[in-house]
Amino acid sequence: MAQNYYFDNAASSMPYPEVVKRVAETMAINYANPSSLHFAGQSSMAVIEKTREIAAKAIGANPAQICFTSSGTEANNMAMLGFCRSLPKPAHIITSAIEHSSLLAPASQLEKEGYRLTYLKPGQDGIISPRSLLAAITPDTKLVSIMHANNETGVVQDIAAMADIAHLYGATFHTDAIASFMKIGIDVVCMGIDMLSASGHKCYGPKGVGFLYAKDVECLEPLMLGGSHERGIRPGTLNVEQIAGLGEAIALCIKNGSGDRERIREIKQLLVDGIAGEGNGILINGSQESCLDEIVNFFVPGGRADMMLAAMDMRGLQVSAGAACDAGAIGPSHVISAMGRGEGGASIRFSIGRQNTLDEASAAVKIFLEATRSKGLL
Amino acid sequence: MAQNYYFDNAASSMPYPEVVKRVAETMAINYANPSSLHFAGQSSMAVIEKTREIAAKAIGANPAQICFTSSGTEANNMAMLGFCRSLPKPAHIITSAIEHSSLLAPASQLEKEGYRLTYLKPGQDGIISPRSLLAAITPDTKLVSIMHANNETGVVQDIAAMADIAHLYGATFHTDAIASFMKIGIDVVCMGIDMLSASGHKCYGPKGVGFLYAKDVECLEPLMLGGSHERGIRPGTLNVEQIAGLGEAIALCIKNGSGDRERIREIKQLLVDGIAGEGNGILINGSQESCLDEIVNFFVPGGRADMMLAAMDMRGLQVSAGAACDAGAIGPSHVISAMGRGEGGASIRFSIGRQNTLDEASAAVKIFLEATRSKGLL
Repeated sequence: MAQNYYFDNAASSMPYPEVVKRVAETMAINYANPSSLHFAGQSSMAVIEKTREIAAKAIGANPAQICFTSSGTEANNMAMLGFCRSLPKPAHIITSAIEHSSLLAPASQLEKEGYRLTYLKPGQDGIISPRSLLAAITPDTKLVSIMHANNETGVVQDIAAMADIAHLYGATFHTDAIASFMKIGIDVVCMGIDMLSASGHKCYGPKGVGFLYAKDVECLEPLMLGGSHERGIRPGTLNVEQIAGLGEAIALCIKNGSGDRERIREIKQLLVDGIAGEGNGILINGSQESCLDEIVNFFVPGGRADMMLAAMDMRGLQVSAGAACDAGAIGPSHVISAMGRGEGGASIRFSIGRQNTLDEASAAVKIFLEATRSKGLL
Repeated sequence: MAQNYYFDNAASSMPYPEVVKRVAETMAINYANPSSLHFAGQSSMAVIEKTREIAAKAIGANPAQICFTSSGTEANNMAMLGFCRSLPKPAHIITSAIEHSSLLAPASQLEKEGYRLTYLKPGQDGIISPRSLLAAITPDTKLVSIMHANNETGVVQDIAAMADIAHLYGATFHTDAIASFMKIGIDVVCMGIDMLSASGHKCYGPKGVGFLYAKDVECLEPLMLGGSHERGIRPGTLNVEQIAGLGEAIALCIKNGSGDRERIREIKQLLVDGIAGEGNGILINGSQESCLDEIVNFFVPGGRADMMLAAMDMRGLQVSAGAACDAGAIGPSHVISAMGRGEGGASIRFSIGRQNTLDEASAAVKIFLEATRSKGLL
């Protein structure tokens, strides 16, 4: 098989080998149901509580404020549907036009159910201005949900400023931190975050596991009903092995984070210089002053994303045109469109993982330019 | 550490070593997001589609009728809430008093939402009579949901007869087959099942994965909203590794099933003879003529389940007093109570797994009798 260059780590990251080992060991040893009261069950529960502590500590929360979910999507749904359905209608909810579909789809559902929704628009740089929140918020606003870092552009929002504004008006503040968790620092207390969504497979952990941090877990209405797991807000046998793997991933990210950081930055710089640094008309979508090191989103004037992606895939380079969850959709993504760009060109996201090397990045640049040329675009 | 005797396989089974290996390999290789259109993403999707075929074939369904979920609980919730919320109110729904909490809690929620619910009662033998369904069903009945095998007693219901009755009245028939899947044969066509719930960790597969079979998947309202995964009815990145492990578990159950069957039967017989065969007053809850080989539920007159479980646990024997999901609840379970038994004694479930041996069963009998005697009950 030809060499493969995987630069789609924001769609799903390559798990740490230690995470894989931990998941397998946990499956083999801690197979008992963590809700069982016997020794074997309680040993499984201890594994879960250990991850709960690790996850809580990683964001400055208390373990009792962490509710495990099956995905980031479920965490976002719990924050939106679970929180808002406990509010009297027509409460006002503010979010942004550049949220992930797992936030926007529940928002749209809430509108149908009689809630009032406002969608803040970003500037051309992808940044949601705290002033736009100040202009939209009212005493009826009960929830403000703004993502921490955007999954397509990597642009990081000023969460602390927006949480402050939300609190001034008595609103609860949620952030979708799925793209940023374990990539940039988060402290829910310092940043004033009341609810936060995270996912395992975006930070070198397993798929099928995520969590919702909630300052007050018990105010959430459950999306599913059944046993009294997770303080009664999320039923279903706890997924011991995936939760163990998530704990391992977080611990390793904390341990290796600063070491990885330098290399990831160099890789991003190499991609930026190689692809957009030649005066060839290729641009970058979104502010680079306030951006994750892991993501860079290029705009190729005149390009068609689907054809460019296919040309790169054929050459062994895996990148994307937006969220994998929306892959297959035609036209520019809702994020790039909301930034006022997207028409008349292709937006292509590179997302870097800790396993990527500078050599891979050089090869990726070569393939990108070759594929772009093959479409007559350079 | 002292030897451990795990007879709580209905709470969670010990996964096949091959399943553990498969999960780990899939994590390491197929980490790409299956929704991604590139080669790596499509390789992940191929893993999922393979399991979808295996699962469908195991119950006589089409792959397009299988929707993966994060748990059996989620599958039951989709069948109840997802199906019923698409019905005009006040539709009539029939279920039974001995369903799992992941079915009863959504049923109770539907009552609050304005639907009419009827709960069929079992006989003392734990069997729901098809005649009781015939007496309860009306032309307004839109859904009948009766579990295949009960998770506490192992009693198996006459699903085909009840599905026939449901269809006579134009109602859809759902069965919670979480306890029976891969233990007794299921053919959704021959048995007339329109929807069926299953879970990985009850059949030697991974936790965190299950599926809902639905004859017509698109009639279900999603519980969560987001990307268009699973034909738009269940968003969230598909849990490739757990789904791969589920496929492996099903394939192995099919391959090894008949070989395991004989041993599991011998173990059950040994438990029955050793514990209830001595004229010591200990009884068995539920019909043994229509029962899973894997489950036997003993009734100890005068006993208190929590104290007996603790005494057995101390001696290295892990069994349970009912569903793990309800562990910690005081008093007899809703299942045993509905059968008209439970007061004045302890109900203790043994659930056998393929890894259990006759020697383990002999040791378990010894511990059970010892613990019972230690409470002054024999």
